[in-house]
Amino acid sequence: MTIAVIYGGTRQNGNTELLTEQVVQGIVTEKIYLRDHTILPIEDMRHSQDGFQERNDDYNSILDRIMPHNILLFATPIYWYSMSGTMKNFIDRWSQTLRDPKYPDFKNKMASKKAFVIAVGGDDPTIKGLPMIQQFKHIFDFMGTDFEGYILGKGNKPEDIFQDKEALFAASQLNNNLKG
Amino acid sequence: MTIAVIYGGTRQNGNTELLTEQVVQGIVTEKIYLRDHTILPIEDMRHSQDGFQERNDDYNSILDRIMPHNILLFATPIYWYSMSGTMKNFIDRWSQTLRDPKYPDFKNKMASKKAFVIAVGGDDPTIKGLPMIQQFKHIFDFMGTDFEGYILGKGNKPEDIFQDKEALFAASQLNNNLKG
Amino acid sequence: MTIAVIYGGTRQNGNTELLTEQVVQGIVTEKIYLRDHTILPIEDMRHSQDGFQERNDDYNSILDRIMPHNILLFATPIYWYSMSGTMKNFIDRWSQTLRDPKYPDFKNKMASKKAFVIAVGGDDPTIKGLPMIQQFKHIFDFMGTDFEGYILGKGNKPEDIFQDKEALFAASQLNNNLKG
Amino acid sequence: MTIAVIYGGTRQNGNTELLTEQVVQGIVTEKIYLRDHTILPIEDMRHSQDGFQERNDDYNSILDRIMPHNILLFATPIYWYSMSGTMKNFIDRWSQTLRDPKYPDFKNKMASKKAFVIAVGGDDPTIKGLPMIQQFKHIFDFMGTDFEGYILGKGNKPEDIFQDKEALFAASQLNNNLKG
Repeated sequence: MTIAVIYGGTRQNGNTELLTEQVVQGIVTEKIYLRDHTILPIEDMRHSQDGFQERNDDYNSILDRIMPHNILLFATPIYWYSMSGTMKNFIDRWSQTLRDPKYPDFKNKMASKKAFVIAVGGDDPTIKGLPMIQQFKHIFDFMGTDFEGYILGKGNKPEDIFQDKEALFAASQLNNNLKG
Repeated sequence: MTIAVIYGGTRQNGNTELLTEQVVQGIVTEKIYLRDHTILPIEDMRHSQDGFQERNDDYNSILDRIMPHNILLFATPIYWYSMSGTMKNFIDRWSQTLRDPKYPDFKNKMASKKAFVIAVGGDDPTIKGLPMIQQFKHIFDFMGTDFEGYILGKGNKPEDIFQDKEALFAASQLNNNLKG
Repeated sequence: MTIAVIYGGTRQNGNTELLTEQVVQGIVTEKIYLRDHTILPIEDMRHSQDGFQERNDDYNSILDRIMPHNILLFATPIYWYSMSGTMKNFIDRWSQTLRDPKYPDFKNKMASKKAFVIAVGGDDPTIKGLPMIQQFKHIFDFMGTDFEGYILGKGNKPEDIFQDKEALFAASQLNNNLKG
Repeated sequence: MTIAVIYGGTRQNGNTELLTEQVVQGIVTEKIYLRDHTILPIEDMRHSQDGFQERNDDYNSILDRIMPHNILLFATPIYWYSMSGTMKNFIDRWSQTLRDPKYPDFKNKMASKKAFVIAVGGDDPTIKGLPMIQQFKHIFDFMGTDFEGYILGKGNKPEDIFQDKEALFAASQLNNNLKG
């Protein structure tokens, strides 16, 4: 079992990253910081004659790094009660990959993976972050990916997350589980 | 009362746009097609010494077109069970505007507006689109904006929306209401 | 296709009933007013040696009236953001029926039915009623029942529902659909 | 600060009760087991000339035991993706109390309390229990009660909850917090 971490945050060492580091401590992972890459929004070409066009950005190269791994950690700060727009653009592009002859097994491969969500927010995340968790549930259900769990942490200012003992405990539990 | 429509879709004449046209039929509106503009993802600089930096994209000019209006229609296809990444990036940037001295009254002005959401999706939108509605509710509550209503339509292939009689009826009701 | 209507309200001719009458106008249905019956809360005996005991109330006789029908309408006022306690007690008892040798095919039979929810509430039902819809979705998914649609109406005082044109339109659409 | 625990479960020493005992260990609390009392469903008499009538059951005496306390723990097994029908009937009756001249300060008093929810379920509670949490949020918001937190535990067979380390940790954290 190997792990890819997909970071959606835009701030280095943000609370979400700090919490996620607890989760993957001592584990070799493939880390992808979406902010360091260009991912263009999808252009919905499902119904055009020529179909989707190559976007010539970093999306495919990121996908190529993710696909070999069995476990995906989606680590995103909660921006406006859901994942960051950066991460959303990444996921939106899956609609293109689902129709891309270069990735004929995309859905099947995603269906064999396990996913976790790690998200930190400042505004009552364990309540107001729930629609985001429900969205991820629908996303993973569509792909057939097992949604194995999530951690919702509370943090606003840098390093706030270290005050959220329940999130830290959940991170250490998940770390054990992933090492297992 | 004047209306701005913020389109988050990436396909011209998509189902969401067709439905929204029913809503605003016969009404002069400011129409913003986010896909025609460059909106960079937010870089969270809340906690850096220098604060947020100008991103030199189209975001502020779009905001300037929206702010004079009392009623905002957020029209987005449902991509992966929420608004498009394009629209999400637009909303994410509000965090910057909230701290931007050029927009000292941003929150107050938003708090005096009414908002509607119009969204069309292909995968059981009246059930699986609900977390998106709950997310918008949290967004509008944060800003103090009145969330006056929403229409969830069903459509996948072009023009499918014209089969969704309940969505069309809701659109005509909202049209009357906005004309009123 | 025949229809059973399960009314969870406690007030005769309440808004939910008025709306539901629009839905079933001109259609012969089996109408069950839960308020006219005694349905005891479940006693969870899954793990006791003797298993569930007969509760000697009206639950089984109600179930016997429902089971022959292909379509179930759950009509409940929104009390405290979900179905009435009366209706909840009725559904809670399904856990007993699932283990009741007198109903060996309970789950299979429920899995062949279609369900609709009709609910009227006074406090922002199209937003604050959504967790109830999501709860019903989980209930029907567990049983394998198709959740074919719902109507959320707004009403507080008697006959308020006649002002909710969208709910009335949805009711007339569903009426056509059920007659069809 | 004193605490009342309102138990909605129907099985003695069920997983929800075991988890809740961890939460209140070493703390004197007022414990109310709803299953030991008769609580009739509400009859909605808001719009009848004579108003609500005394129901002559145990509801008021339970309310009288709860009202003196500042902190309320709602401890319910997850039955069909929400609180038990027993607990729902209890909460439904609040609509009567809100209009009961014997409880003129009901809402004000509830608005000064803090509430926690402790719930154990067998079917993916941290996902499928979320609509219940959102429902409680709406309930507490209506009353003005602070919804201070919740624990969703996993358990099906007796004592399963002792395997849910995150729920147990959250319970011990809440225990410290309540003792504090």
